[in-house]
Amino acid sequence: MPAIDLNCDMGESFGAWKMGNDAALMQYISSANIACGFHAGDPAIMRETVRLALKYHVAIGAHPGFPDLQGFGRRDIKMSPEDVYAMVLYQTGALQAIARSEGAAVHHVKPHGALYNMAAKDRTLADAIARAVQQAGPDLVLYGLSGSALIEAARSIGLRSASEVFADRTYQSDGSLTPRSRADAMVESARGATEQALQMVHYQTVVSADGKTVDLQAETICLHGDGAHALEFAQAIHAAFKQNGIEVKAP
Amino acid sequence: MPAIDLNCDMGESFGAWKMGNDAALMQYISSANIACGFHAGDPAIMRETVRLALKYHVAIGAHPGFPDLQGFGRRDIKMSPEDVYAMVLYQTGALQAIARSEGAAVHHVKPHGALYNMAAKDRTLADAIARAVQQAGPDLVLYGLSGSALIEAARSIGLRSASEVFADRTYQSDGSLTPRSRADAMVESARGATEQALQMVHYQTVVSADGKTVDLQAETICLHGDGAHALEFAQAIHAAFKQNGIEVKAP
Amino acid sequence: MPAIDLNCDMGESFGAWKMGNDAALMQYISSANIACGFHAGDPAIMRETVRLALKYHVAIGAHPGFPDLQGFGRRDIKMSPEDVYAMVLYQTGALQAIARSEGAAVHHVKPHGALYNMAAKDRTLADAIARAVQQAGPDLVLYGLSGSALIEAARSIGLRSASEVFADRTYQSDGSLTPRSRADAMVESARGATEQALQMVHYQTVVSADGKTVDLQAETICLHGDGAHALEFAQAIHAAFKQNGIEVKAP
Amino acid sequence: MPAIDLNCDMGESFGAWKMGNDAALMQYISSANIACGFHAGDPAIMRETVRLALKYHVAIGAHPGFPDLQGFGRRDIKMSPEDVYAMVLYQTGALQAIARSEGAAVHHVKPHGALYNMAAKDRTLADAIARAVQQAGPDLVLYGLSGSALIEAARSIGLRSASEVFADRTYQSDGSLTPRSRADAMVESARGATEQALQMVHYQTVVSADGKTVDLQAETICLHGDGAHALEFAQAIHAAFKQNGIEVKAP
Repeated sequence: MPAIDLNCDMGESFGAWKMGNDAALMQYISSANIACGFHAGDPAIMRETVRLALKYHVAIGAHPGFPDLQGFGRRDIKMSPEDVYAMVLYQTGALQAIARSEGAAVHHVKPHGALYNMAAKDRTLADAIARAVQQAGPDLVLYGLSGSALIEAARSIGLRSASEVFADRTYQSDGSLTPRSRADAMVESARGATEQALQMVHYQTVVSADGKTVDLQAETICLHGDGAHALEFAQAIHAAFKQNGIEVKAP
Repeated sequence: MPAIDLNCDMGESFGAWKMGNDAALMQYISSANIACGFHAGDPAIMRETVRLALKYHVAIGAHPGFPDLQGFGRRDIKMSPEDVYAMVLYQTGALQAIARSEGAAVHHVKPHGALYNMAAKDRTLADAIARAVQQAGPDLVLYGLSGSALIEAARSIGLRSASEVFADRTYQSDGSLTPRSRADAMVESARGATEQALQMVHYQTVVSADGKTVDLQAETICLHGDGAHALEFAQAIHAAFKQNGIEVKAP
Repeated sequence: MPAIDLNCDMGESFGAWKMGNDAALMQYISSANIACGFHAGDPAIMRETVRLALKYHVAIGAHPGFPDLQGFGRRDIKMSPEDVYAMVLYQTGALQAIARSEGAAVHHVKPHGALYNMAAKDRTLADAIARAVQQAGPDLVLYGLSGSALIEAARSIGLRSASEVFADRTYQSDGSLTPRSRADAMVESARGATEQALQMVHYQTVVSADGKTVDLQAETICLHGDGAHALEFAQAIHAAFKQNGIEVKAP
Repeated sequence: MPAIDLNCDMGESFGAWKMGNDAALMQYISSANIACGFHAGDPAIMRETVRLALKYHVAIGAHPGFPDLQGFGRRDIKMSPEDVYAMVLYQTGALQAIARSEGAAVHHVKPHGALYNMAAKDRTLADAIARAVQQAGPDLVLYGLSGSALIEAARSIGLRSASEVFADRTYQSDGSLTPRSRADAMVESARGATEQALQMVHYQTVVSADGKTVDLQAETICLHGDGAHALEFAQAIHAAFKQNGIEVKAP
């Protein structure tokens, strides 16, 4: 029976501000990436989100980001690799203690936003993150963009990794994501996203925006938690996997 | 051979701003309370400070504070006990991961500044902190003001605690510290501080500002890391303890 | 023709997080209290909110708060009066420059949340705020709770003030607001809020929770921007004022 | 009588952390660039620094930076030009109100750190800053690197500008500063810095690291406030200007 992980960013509220639809989405996913207070989330929200993940038997992941609440961690910040190393340890450790207090353990780490994107291309940054994750826990799984420097960095030090693909983003013929600035960056329909997700699991390929079949490695599929269609897409993909005998489970 | 712990707040720099004289003081103490990023400290500085403590075989402690960099954690903030609970877990966990990455472990937790003072009197707040520390690690030692609600809170749940006294602060006849607003709040000379420290260790008493002998419990003595005399006092007390056959070691 | 001001807190989003229904509410009010970045709001959101206020001919006010994004400025912080003075100047000045850049001017200042509540009772704090507002602009109007130390502080230095009352909060027989912790703190129906608002304008009185008629000074009525009923209440009160020949305008 | 401006970054303390030697340096300069709370400084420190500048008849400038206390504003952050525009207005306005409260006015604006460096090369960012400064006050002077996009941006909208040069940095033959990563980036002696400063004022040229004479425009000379030699260099240059009949005054 084939299996795949469905992951989603969670716990992105902050103080009095709410974001996302965590309680509804949690039932369709197998991995939650929980914001750790630097770009979103605060200690109380992290705790609530851990409890919610436990309730739905969803794997708990740390989602460390740049220290940038105003920019929601989406703005590139030129931090030194040493600072990134310490920052990832810090955020992961904070979530580990909160998870431990609820009788749970952190299962994976997925960098957030600009940190994720920068680490996909910058091997030095990727190495700093991979080392931090390994130090936080040698059994942690590092989630990164399929084919990225982050996945290479994890492999090079014997850290478990999960190659991430996107059901609702279109791809270029070189395997990269179509930049969000382009009109055709997003898969617009639940049906299109579902078909792309099924193909990714069954064949480890995707059809690019210009019609080519491209190889990729699909170990975890990212579902976006925000946006109008988040819940609809999650339900549709989850249902299609069930119908096609694909098990949804964390790596 | 009698023994006592000497603790000092450490790692109170932040980003480009330096504070304290950590490297010099570390050799005279047995416990370092390391700021965890909310009132001072940042992930990189926490890591440096852990390494420095390891170098001098000093016990590593978390020093969680209110989220208030501008006020250095010294301003009362009316946070809910639930928020304080999550915040202490968060900060302690962050330091635990950083310590672990250096092959060390966190030994104790001492709340900082306004959090320490509020928890000395407010039992609900004290309970929230004690539970958080226990959840972060059942073997952690909670440092609190001798005779305070924080010590009671620790004892009530079977958490190890260390009753803290001050060598450089004067006491009232009811065992409380003379408020800093008063002119006679501080012990001004190294000799006075040393004598007070020796009496605390040998007799578990202190002479109050108005000349009475007052009982207290002295398990750890706080040395202030800032101020003009910090290093001088630390050296004098450390030397006096050596001369008097008192072992300086963490509880 | 009688006149009254309707004010509402605005611009309380932050970065990627949205809060409130500013565009819909703006058409029913005469004064907008715009968050200034310390408890909510950021420079870009402040600018958007100023533009929105201009579009609807609504008076622009600064809404300074404690430096506490996580607590949304609702937690008491024991800041020195000197620090509060400088902080109110800072936040007001920031909004003044943004307003100026859009061809507008700041008309009033209303402290937010815990700062508002503390300044209602603490005259020293109230004096610090009143002096800061006067220094930021001698023609600014300071909004404060009717009968509070803040209104007294403004009067004592010749600063214009507006006494604030609440259409959707119940009052005690001593003229104070029923604490939010009590079940009967809120006026639950739009009809009840409207009747209370009309009585406040016409008679400068309110019926307390235990049935007594209490004097107060009603120069501006606060409409809450959040909550399920915010828009409904605003529309009902605005319509009732129109029907009763009460002009809605800023002081 | 030739004249030149000597400017220095000031008010870079934050809360309990001290930085710089403001009181000593203030007597040798004609322009103070005061940190505005985003990368350093807080409202109370801004007020103190304004008072210090007034005492020494030094022109008061805003020194806006990226929102990055931990990085001291020295890390590139990819902010949108719209966000930079609003952020510069915000910080400048905050200082304007504080200056006004002390009977003073803001005279100039100099972007800080990474914002300064990015705006030297990125014309879109430079335009956003220049427009913000003009909106904050049409008579403000924008300080920027001699020959930079920031100076061009100011000129293109009729905003006054001051071309900045460095007495203690070496130059390349193309007129750019030698990168700090190179061993010969700094002028090491007070004598060397003084000679370079005199040549800049008298001839509007500098001798590059490889011995060429290069044209530049010197309207204001930056003195660094930190570093071991800050005070020594400031005294030496100030004395040399006096001896050579060069007036030190703000543009």
